Amino acid sequence: MHFLAEEEQGPLPPKEDFSAWYNELLWRAEIMDVRYPVKGLYVWYPHGFALRRNVYSLMRAILDRDHQEALFPLLIPETELAKESAHIKGFEEEVYWVTHGGTTPLDVRLALRPTSECAIYPMYALWIRSHADLPLKLYQVVNTFRYETKHTRPLIRLREITSFKEAHTVHASWEEASSQVEAAIALYREFYGNLAVPVLISRRPDWDKFPGADYTIAVDTVMPDGRTLQIGTVHHLGDHFSRTFQIMFEDEAGEQKYAHQTCYGISERCIAAVVSMHGDDRGLVLPPAVAPVQVVIVPITIGKRKEEVTAAAAQAEGTLASAGFRVRTDTREIRPGAKYYYWEMRGVPVRLEIGPRDLDARQVTAVTRLGNRVQIPGHALLDGVRDLMASFADALRERAEMHVRGRVRVSRTMAEVREAVSTGVTLAPWCGDRKCADAIEEATRASVLGTEVRSEYCPEASGPCVICGKDGQTALIGRSY
Amino acid sequence: MHFLAEEEQGPLPPKEDFSAWYNELLWRAEIMDVRYPVKGLYVWYPHGFALRRNVYSLMRAILDRDHQEALFPLLIPETELAKESAHIKGFEEEVYWVTHGGTTPLDVRLALRPTSECAIYPMYALWIRSHADLPLKLYQVVNTFRYETKHTRPLIRLREITSFKEAHTVHASWEEASSQVEAAIALYREFYGNLAVPVLISRRPDWDKFPGADYTIAVDTVMPDGRTLQIGTVHHLGDHFSRTFQIMFEDEAGEQKYAHQTCYGISERCIAAVVSMHGDDRGLVLPPAVAPVQVVIVPITIGKRKEEVTAAAAQAEGTLASAGFRVRTDTREIRPGAKYYYWEMRGVPVRLEIGPRDLDARQVTAVTRLGNRVQIPGHALLDGVRDLMASFADALRERAEMHVRGRVRVSRTMAEVREAVSTGVTLAPWCGDRKCADAIEEATRASVLGTEVRSEYCPEASGPCVICGKDGQTALIGRSY
Repeated sequence: MHFLAEEEQGPLPPKEDFSAWYNELLWRAEIMDVRYPVKGLYVWYPHGFALRRNVYSLMRAILDRDHQEALFPLLIPETELAKESAHIKGFEEEVYWVTHGGTTPLDVRLALRPTSECAIYPMYALWIRSHADLPLKLYQVVNTFRYETKHTRPLIRLREITSFKEAHTVHASWEEASSQVEAAIALYREFYGNLAVPVLISRRPDWDKFPGADYTIAVDTVMPDGRTLQIGTVHHLGDHFSRTFQIMFEDEAGEQKYAHQTCYGISERCIAAVVSMHGDDRGLVLPPAVAPVQVVIVPITIGKRKEEVTAAAAQAEGTLASAGFRVRTDTREIRPGAKYYYWEMRGVPVRLEIGPRDLDARQVTAVTRLGNRVQIPGHALLDGVRDLMASFADALRERAEMHVRGRVRVSRTMAEVREAVSTGVTLAPWCGDRKCADAIEEATRASVLGTEVRSEYCPEASGPCVICGKDGQTALIGRSY
Repeated sequence: MHFLAEEEQGPLPPKEDFSAWYNELLWRAEIMDVRYPVKGLYVWYPHGFALRRNVYSLMRAILDRDHQEALFPLLIPETELAKESAHIKGFEEEVYWVTHGGTTPLDVRLALRPTSECAIYPMYALWIRSHADLPLKLYQVVNTFRYETKHTRPLIRLREITSFKEAHTVHASWEEASSQVEAAIALYREFYGNLAVPVLISRRPDWDKFPGADYTIAVDTVMPDGRTLQIGTVHHLGDHFSRTFQIMFEDEAGEQKYAHQTCYGISERCIAAVVSMHGDDRGLVLPPAVAPVQVVIVPITIGKRKEEVTAAAAQAEGTLASAGFRVRTDTREIRPGAKYYYWEMRGVPVRLEIGPRDLDARQVTAVTRLGNRVQIPGHALLDGVRDLMASFADALRERAEMHVRGRVRVSRTMAEVREAVSTGVTLAPWCGDRKCADAIEEATRASVLGTEVRSEYCPEASGPCVICGKDGQTALIGRSY
């Protein structure tokens, strides 16, 4: 594929100008191409797709401990989708409809799944008969569709969500489903921990819960511009869907009971979060756990000792590759500076430079993507790279946590709320009344995102509601993507 | 999930009654559920999906050596799909059309990709500028759609092909594209070699080539009933699509040239082939390379020595798991015979039985899915299982090759062709004229599948055409799925 060199591209916009930076970075780092000829549909470049593979492998490894992966059809008959009334009401404006097969009009219109409850639960009704079949915990990773009329944005607001991981569980009781909600939150914490993306967890207000759920717990992060991005949700579905789809089981006493359910999902927004949280003015910065290339070796072959340098680079590559590192040697005939630029843009955690001077000193020069430069003795290459990679991962995590801490404030008055949400999120007391939430939104263009906030970054902030003065609980308030 | 026990199900239909056997097996072995409420759409059970994961990991490992994975949108605007006239003509009767987003009619109808040339090549036109960008070799694994009006069948004839691996390559010349066709055939041979599925490779007649291709090479296998299943195709696209989509590059001399292209694909039919080729009257038989469970351990805990037996089973599981085997211990409270039935149905290559007598003899009893029973001394467990697994894989391959050899005959007359295609495929001389191919088809309900046949199972059969008596080349003739 043809990419322009540094000189031809001009500099990346600074990250401070987040929107411009994000859009430019995505194609320069070969994550997404936005030039596909339909609004809201984007193309994954190979480098972006390799990142996606690693991120979703991580997710699968975590889920596979006690979930099983399955796969359900994309097309949902209108008759099934319409069964749960709150659910269809939540999605009807956003559903893509297939109306024709070839030149033949279809008898029943088919929806492109906006989410898969109505594809999965008719099957659950067939699969579940007895308490011995419970709990059932399945997930799938699929493309889902929303006819977005708002401004679309790659990885964040899409018409084809290409990478929706949705889990659907079934339990004998409301309480067991409730425990599964907690278990799912723990899984998502672990997942984002591995990506070094700090999260804020809260319970969404009732009017903002998933259509058809008892309640929704959301996972948000704080983007560089201070706006929040919802990067995961966990829904307690109670028995709403099991009543609609007749998911019943015989309990120990031989009685037929409705099952209780949960579902929880993460989309490619998890990759938007990684890109946005860690990237800088020179491009992507990727956590080693998911970087498609973890170590790039740049042989400095100026002058006569080319063969010797090339051999040393090959040896280093062999050593690191056998130890399981994803490593690449850049042997292109371009100057080293252009190679540095290229791999920095693509977020490679560690670069090794090997030149004649390094040969003489029996060492390699290692530079992390955060600029930490060390010499590693040739005989201790593996340990040296391992240590450097670990300290790089720690530094990345600390930097991300600092960013989020710096964007979170407590407010006691509307003036403070207004001030806080212009650069980040805030915790403020709120009485729980929708009218007061609407008043906050009207005054600040920020929403009450949730209550029962759980996050090491979010202090308690109960007290008199910032609008009406009545007793209020801690609410998370911010402008969201 | 609730599955019936052996006693409740009755026996599997015999494999001789292939169609009934196939349909029953797919759900009893938990590969697919056919009860989804739309014709031609099926659900992957977790066990089936685990098999799919392993099969596609194998495919990715082979492709990743010199291809890169990417991902392009599902929805193709009608305007793009219509650009290549031969191509759209080949698909227009089969395309699903999205016409509405929510309640809003779309300005341009969107096709669900039947295949992705028209989604990918507009991007290639943007990505390729110079000979230095070539060759480009990408692939994706996606869901594609065909509005099938014929009888549908899980994994074989689907309306949602859930697992289409399609590779698309771009080259500087027709000859280079032609070499890539050969490279792709070699990759597919290797892939099916790993699955122990014997293949017949031939060049499809011109009227049966991919719409928009110069020529098509197809990979077929022979199903238990003697009909062929096309399980892979490789297309030389020449410069048809590059002219349509303006995929041009500057050559070394500075001249603008049209690129030459290939594409090649494999769908979940590869799994239909594995299931059909190796299964028997007791269920699935899976090659170790892709079996979701390679070894199942059944502790025989009748009587008092339950703890001791359980400990020995756990130790064996630990030994095998650390060596990389996918191993499961079945500790359910059901009788051993029911467990044997359960895991045989699901195709597990090797079963280990550990009971009090085995403890006394310091051994385990190992039984392969093909019925080979051996005692393995406890101290040599790992080597014993490795050897047994390898000999099982060899036996599976030999059996499959014997099946295919037994279904392939040479014919010199139409009487022989008619006889041969009632139970298998045949090689017969054909002049190359479509009229003669049509006459063969009319007389036998079998088609000329291809010429230039390459397969160790297919002898040469040139001579006088079985219809007109003119000079004929070897043609592969059979009834196909």
